[in-house]
Amino acid sequence: MTQRRIGVGMIGYAFMGRAHSHAWRNVARVFDVPLEPDMACICGRNAEAVAAAASKLGWSSHETDWRRVIERDDVDLVDVSTPGDTHAEIAIAALGAGKHVLCEKPLANTLEEAEAMAEAASTSDRVAMVGFNYRRVPAVELARRLIADGRLGVVRHVRAVYLQDWIVDPDFPLVWRLRRELAGSGALGDIGAHIVDLSQHLTGDAIASVSGLTETFVRERPLPGGGGRGAVTVDDAALFLARFAGGAVATFEASRLATGHKNGLRIEVNGSLGSLAFDLERLNELELYESEGFARVLVTEPDHPWLEAWWPPGHVLGWEHTFTNQARDLLCAIGDGVACAPTFADGLQVQRVLDAVLRSSERGAWVDVQTST
Amino acid sequence: MTQRRIGVGMIGYAFMGRAHSHAWRNVARVFDVPLEPDMACICGRNAEAVAAAASKLGWSSHETDWRRVIERDDVDLVDVSTPGDTHAEIAIAALGAGKHVLCEKPLANTLEEAEAMAEAASTSDRVAMVGFNYRRVPAVELARRLIADGRLGVVRHVRAVYLQDWIVDPDFPLVWRLRRELAGSGALGDIGAHIVDLSQHLTGDAIASVSGLTETFVRERPLPGGGGRGAVTVDDAALFLARFAGGAVATFEASRLATGHKNGLRIEVNGSLGSLAFDLERLNELELYESEGFARVLVTEPDHPWLEAWWPPGHVLGWEHTFTNQARDLLCAIGDGVACAPTFADGLQVQRVLDAVLRSSERGAWVDVQTST
Amino acid sequence: MTQRRIGVGMIGYAFMGRAHSHAWRNVARVFDVPLEPDMACICGRNAEAVAAAASKLGWSSHETDWRRVIERDDVDLVDVSTPGDTHAEIAIAALGAGKHVLCEKPLANTLEEAEAMAEAASTSDRVAMVGFNYRRVPAVELARRLIADGRLGVVRHVRAVYLQDWIVDPDFPLVWRLRRELAGSGALGDIGAHIVDLSQHLTGDAIASVSGLTETFVRERPLPGGGGRGAVTVDDAALFLARFAGGAVATFEASRLATGHKNGLRIEVNGSLGSLAFDLERLNELELYESEGFARVLVTEPDHPWLEAWWPPGHVLGWEHTFTNQARDLLCAIGDGVACAPTFADGLQVQRVLDAVLRSSERGAWVDVQTST
Amino acid sequence: MTQRRIGVGMIGYAFMGRAHSHAWRNVARVFDVPLEPDMACICGRNAEAVAAAASKLGWSSHETDWRRVIERDDVDLVDVSTPGDTHAEIAIAALGAGKHVLCEKPLANTLEEAEAMAEAASTSDRVAMVGFNYRRVPAVELARRLIADGRLGVVRHVRAVYLQDWIVDPDFPLVWRLRRELAGSGALGDIGAHIVDLSQHLTGDAIASVSGLTETFVRERPLPGGGGRGAVTVDDAALFLARFAGGAVATFEASRLATGHKNGLRIEVNGSLGSLAFDLERLNELELYESEGFARVLVTEPDHPWLEAWWPPGHVLGWEHTFTNQARDLLCAIGDGVACAPTFADGLQVQRVLDAVLRSSERGAWVDVQTST
Repeated sequence: MTQRRIGVGMIGYAFMGRAHSHAWRNVARVFDVPLEPDMACICGRNAEAVAAAASKLGWSSHETDWRRVIERDDVDLVDVSTPGDTHAEIAIAALGAGKHVLCEKPLANTLEEAEAMAEAASTSDRVAMVGFNYRRVPAVELARRLIADGRLGVVRHVRAVYLQDWIVDPDFPLVWRLRRELAGSGALGDIGAHIVDLSQHLTGDAIASVSGLTETFVRERPLPGGGGRGAVTVDDAALFLARFAGGAVATFEASRLATGHKNGLRIEVNGSLGSLAFDLERLNELELYESEGFARVLVTEPDHPWLEAWWPPGHVLGWEHTFTNQARDLLCAIGDGVACAPTFADGLQVQRVLDAVLRSSERGAWVDVQTST
Repeated sequence: MTQRRIGVGMIGYAFMGRAHSHAWRNVARVFDVPLEPDMACICGRNAEAVAAAASKLGWSSHETDWRRVIERDDVDLVDVSTPGDTHAEIAIAALGAGKHVLCEKPLANTLEEAEAMAEAASTSDRVAMVGFNYRRVPAVELARRLIADGRLGVVRHVRAVYLQDWIVDPDFPLVWRLRRELAGSGALGDIGAHIVDLSQHLTGDAIASVSGLTETFVRERPLPGGGGRGAVTVDDAALFLARFAGGAVATFEASRLATGHKNGLRIEVNGSLGSLAFDLERLNELELYESEGFARVLVTEPDHPWLEAWWPPGHVLGWEHTFTNQARDLLCAIGDGVACAPTFADGLQVQRVLDAVLRSSERGAWVDVQTST
Repeated sequence: MTQRRIGVGMIGYAFMGRAHSHAWRNVARVFDVPLEPDMACICGRNAEAVAAAASKLGWSSHETDWRRVIERDDVDLVDVSTPGDTHAEIAIAALGAGKHVLCEKPLANTLEEAEAMAEAASTSDRVAMVGFNYRRVPAVELARRLIADGRLGVVRHVRAVYLQDWIVDPDFPLVWRLRRELAGSGALGDIGAHIVDLSQHLTGDAIASVSGLTETFVRERPLPGGGGRGAVTVDDAALFLARFAGGAVATFEASRLATGHKNGLRIEVNGSLGSLAFDLERLNELELYESEGFARVLVTEPDHPWLEAWWPPGHVLGWEHTFTNQARDLLCAIGDGVACAPTFADGLQVQRVLDAVLRSSERGAWVDVQTST
Repeated sequence: MTQRRIGVGMIGYAFMGRAHSHAWRNVARVFDVPLEPDMACICGRNAEAVAAAASKLGWSSHETDWRRVIERDDVDLVDVSTPGDTHAEIAIAALGAGKHVLCEKPLANTLEEAEAMAEAASTSDRVAMVGFNYRRVPAVELARRLIADGRLGVVRHVRAVYLQDWIVDPDFPLVWRLRRELAGSGALGDIGAHIVDLSQHLTGDAIASVSGLTETFVRERPLPGGGGRGAVTVDDAALFLARFAGGAVATFEASRLATGHKNGLRIEVNGSLGSLAFDLERLNELELYESEGFARVLVTEPDHPWLEAWWPPGHVLGWEHTFTNQARDLLCAIGDGVACAPTFADGLQVQRVLDAVLRSSERGAWVDVQTST
């Protein structure tokens, strides 16, 4: 079969860049997709490092200026895998240049930027997706379908945590993720964004109001280059209560100092007829209660989401597969015109919730989540 | 050995009455206690029913007026197992009559009553204990000791839920527990009180401020005697954030409509050095993280709390044992002068937290927990 | 209500004696039973110790010669809680004296004794029960009913282990349980007997042939009184394969040196339509597979076996409740004429399986389980 | 960096072919390997199908005769992913042609073939590896190291099961895997081989003697092309006891009719000082007992085997990663001269155990595993 091809240019080559490269490399080898990606170029500011990354990760060429990437004719899709403070400029320019865009989460570091991005996406005819990759965990999508099909009845409770412990050591250095000017926020935007998105995605409902707190337990840390300690200017942990528009109530917690938890995203939903729970550290499983007890459903059957393209029942997937599944859906959106989700508008809505949490934390009171106008 | 005896009079003979009877019947058969309880009399307003209960549960006599119980010379200890609206009057009178008192939780339905009770206890030389029986789960006490010994370092996070689903059916009737005038509050006071007490007991710290919400999902229910539906006037669920005096932050949730959860009290604590978790549905286990992973500690060894008196390792205890362990500690407090806990002052402090949650829920803002003056 | 009473005389006052006492003390306080037990007398050879036990455990009198117990008119039921080498003599004499008998497992130390006991029981009109108490775990009985109702289809696989580690320390002394002349066998008879009984009870089928091995890892141990080491003459572990009469195949393993396992009785059954698993360390749970995943059924609902008499849903039972449930069923068998199980014939059948395992281990080949003639 | 390259030719393109292709495609993108694989050609008998597979899976060319593959100069390594009846001929010829060989497990369908293969490997200077991929699960390798380091003390017990249920439906057709002439054996060779290899690999010990049984529960199945039913000529399940040379005792079970189990490889090891357990359906976890309880170790830390090349802590791997890890180790063996394992001799030893199980099943007695001469 001859297959249409799509040129991909990726900005960023760190952790997310590696994960996205893996997806672009494998998606057409696993799935039947309408477009086959060409890994055209990868971009980073350090020429030597990005050249090595291109070679290592399988990209045909490399650039050191993202503006060059969006000018290239062999790039149809721009994959923005940089830190959040650069998302808006790159993504808006890419859309303006007629490129499709995949942008890592959170959509932006500020609400204003996120609004501009959503506006740019809404006036473009290109596909713009934000990378909430955990929507592409098969167990999560199965959960969403069960809820959408009414199997749980009316949703009453959501409880979601995202617990990590990688900065529990007070001598862990003051990396860029711990500085507000670069990272926007701490645990809230980095991992809290995931559980906000998932809670809304799973329930098909929107968070309407929140009451939150943020806390920084370790207020000074060693400077990375040596020479004393500097102030941590983002939250170590963020906790909030929420009311959904549809009436459900929820607790949320994101922390990077929850000792013993490595990637502990757990979300539970209780409805009037049933309940379910998902834990990212056991991402092939869904806990489902309908009558006699919580069943551990191994989500590896051919009729489970995305699974037919992978392996036989019981042959489990890993974390990186979420990116490959995401790439598949993005290619279907571009090539077949399937509706794309999550859109930049979805990403903006998550930002509005996070913004409301921060405002609530400052005021010590409930605040409403801003709605679109 | 000849053994001193202590006469017990119990007010109430429903669920809690059955559990307490079991404890009084067995405590001296299991433990070496300084005082052997005589199950002197049980008291309830329905003469026929209380007579049957006395016979069934092993009490020597019965009364229909609690005032008679506290007058009896053969009663040294009054066990108040009635609904919360009667606790204050009975307990204060019993202390006034020179009796020791065990009072079920919550201490009272109102803060004023609880304060009066704590005042009465503080001016009495009798022992007054409030029945937060889950302190006497061996795994809970082991957890408390580990935290007190510094094994977890500085406590940063507490997350506690108490989830049940016994009123998830909207046709479950409007029983007294769902009416504010009798029950005080709903899930908050009934089961939320337990997790408030446990979180403070485990950490050795006090909740200083809270932000809460309460929700009643099913607002009308069938009247028990038939003839239409009536308004539910208590909360179905209560959720709150909390800050502890020592700096830890916490989420709390109590619900009676969390489908699939029967007696789902779960509490997790993360410290700077380690973490632990406890789940009441698996009450013989403690999850403990110190270095390589969460260990499932089976708390049935002879050197675990209360266990030496029970069975060999691996022979698990049940829910009712918490009451027997509690009775043992109360008898040691009375007979040997060991410090008694939880005191009425402890019970009052829990009431203050619950009161702050209600006030916060009404105001939509954080409120401080009232402190003793 | 006036209630008929039944006098109980118990021989033995160690671990099993304590557990049985607990059952006799509480059974009529929990259940509605046709006969109320009088704890008439307890018997042991050491006068001082048995007097203390009588006082501690709540027995009205004590004896030092079991023959006196079975002569007493106030004893209607003899509870044999002694080591296995004395079971046959006492139980047969008690039946001969017209007493009902409850005999601890294993029924006897030798097949000959067990046969004599079953013969005595079959020619008596008294009730004779062997104490395989784990049949009275609610989750086990629920499992049995599900299988009997066909919910699992045709049973193909059984895998059962009973793992403990209390003698893993090579300096644990050479107690009587490690000497063949007193204990008959080691792990095989002590704990292997339980899983043989349960596997047959759950499936309603009989083990027809076996291939086994026994092993003694620690061959010498310190003598209890000091003065060197002596030979361990029983098995530390026994493993065997089995074929059931109905076609199922099975693995069995009993060990006292399975490090980390305290009371690790686990049994799994796979049928053509479904599967289940039970783990004694989590005795309130049954794992049940019917379609989408293994469900963790919390066996604490009022319609679960024996549960209506205990506590509300989610209020878990402990190990000792199996004896109280057993006592209830025995009293119903005696008082109401309900069929009693397990009978001495059932106990004999278990002995035959154990005997076949030993013979197989010696021969290095499969052997058939002897059947009744 | 310029990198030496190695041409790979793969025979077979079904399930294993897909998994191996994934490994060859990604290994050098993830790991730093001394040789970069060129996916030179893929081979299958159906020209159209193999052409499609080449295109889909990323191979540069395709062949329809495996003899052509081993003749090609651009092929340095032959990957044998065909059914077991063809392994010997291909692998021996490939070695004879001076190619390195990776051969899927089981090494062969008969002991004679396996012996010939091991002989060929031993007289060749090429690397020959048999694909027991589960050795490359990080949790398994961590377990092996812990045991080798003495953390568990002397190993006493192994219990291993491999449970699946994909043919539990009696109308599942009579595919080639259910016919002895093609598959050699059923569950025994297909999945039993894995647990035999793992048990020996983990313990560093060899199975010395076995007593087994095999069973075929569903003896006739529909012919795949229609037209009635045919006889199943392999085992549905195989169970056996084993004694290791070093003194440990073990139970093994492999079944394809264990309802509810999809890929249920579970292996437990008890030593004199500690215990561990591994479950393939949760392949990122290792259960480890050293003192207080079984810890769930999440095996995703950078210092865990192979993990440094993958993702940050808590970002779990899937089943296919075992093949990529295996490819990495094979490339290191070829390129750097690192010792290769498992060798064909290891594969032969597994065959000898399987052969002993079959002989034991036929004789109804223990048989010794043949040792090398």
